[in-house]
Amino acid sequence: MPYIKTPDDTPGIRGLMNLRPDAALALNALVQALLVDDSTLTRAERELIASYVSSQNECTFCMTSHGAIAAHLPGCNYDLVKNVWADYQKADVGDKLKALLNLAEKVRQGGKFVTEADVAVAREQGATDLEIHDTVLIAAAFCMFNRYVDGLGATTPDDPDLYDRIGRQRAEEGYMTKSVLLK
Amino acid sequence: MPYIKTPDDTPGIRGLMNLRPDAALALNALVQALLVDDSTLTRAERELIASYVSSQNECTFCMTSHGAIAAHLPGCNYDLVKNVWADYQKADVGDKLKALLNLAEKVRQGGKFVTEADVAVAREQGATDLEIHDTVLIAAAFCMFNRYVDGLGATTPDDPDLYDRIGRQRAEEGYMTKSVLLK
Repeated sequence: MPYIKTPDDTPGIRGLMNLRPDAALALNALVQALLVDDSTLTRAERELIASYVSSQNECTFCMTSHGAIAAHLPGCNYDLVKNVWADYQKADVGDKLKALLNLAEKVRQGGKFVTEADVAVAREQGATDLEIHDTVLIAAAFCMFNRYVDGLGATTPDDPDLYDRIGRQRAEEGYMTKSVLLK
Repeated sequence: MPYIKTPDDTPGIRGLMNLRPDAALALNALVQALLVDDSTLTRAERELIASYVSSQNECTFCMTSHGAIAAHLPGCNYDLVKNVWADYQKADVGDKLKALLNLAEKVRQGGKFVTEADVAVAREQGATDLEIHDTVLIAAAFCMFNRYVDGLGATTPDDPDLYDRIGRQRAEEGYMTKSVLLK
């Protein structure tokens, strides 16, 4: 049960968003731009960054739902997601993504934890300035989403099938859809 | 100088946003909804929450610019902003805002730092569920903005007149305007 009364019992972030449709629209537009719309990073790579940051912030709802979304996208699966959560340095992802995940983790700790050296390593592994920008903003955005969800005590389901359903739906539809999750 | 190349030398968050107009639009829509549009919290109260969280995150650009915006709004001034930064418990703000600032600080530390007791205190001081929701989301959003700005090493001006000009402009126009800051 969230700390505040929500319009219905929709779990996770959607239950909170139903309180504030104007902010919800902006939040969904943000993840659509960062995680779905055209980018030289694949959708799976971007969802992995989002899920990894959430795992480090111990936000079970965001970590599990974005992990499931990643797993339903080309080039990814549940094993890879779990390996990234456990230790991305040992996971079967390229060196560029490892450098971007390092950058994301620094951002998670705080903006001032990022060093020019972290950025230089990402660039040496082939990351463009826009990919570096987007990685920082994705990591920063999930520091917001994680705090929004856990700061209001949003209901966190524990049924893996439910997260799998969220994952499939968001992988197929993106975030700017009228479908309401979990209903 | 930011860690990445931006389209021009606009300092602060606007220089970064110019790289990603679609994400920038969503980010501006978010702060417009949270900080400007109708709410039972005053605009000054909401900007004070944003500026206080940024001060605790030591993000000079966000702290100073949102402090200046607050100072240009009814019911606030630069002395009050500085007193909130220094120790909001001793500042000349009401008990409800103090309880909401406590909540914002917990969110800043991490979503799981918020307790039902923190929420209960805010409610006892007269905060509604929507005010509690908005406070948590404002604090969470500035944990994003602070990381975006500092994680990419955005240029942080040190001219107080420039922040004062930003403050006046945003206080008058809000965030969904075509005017480009600092040009």
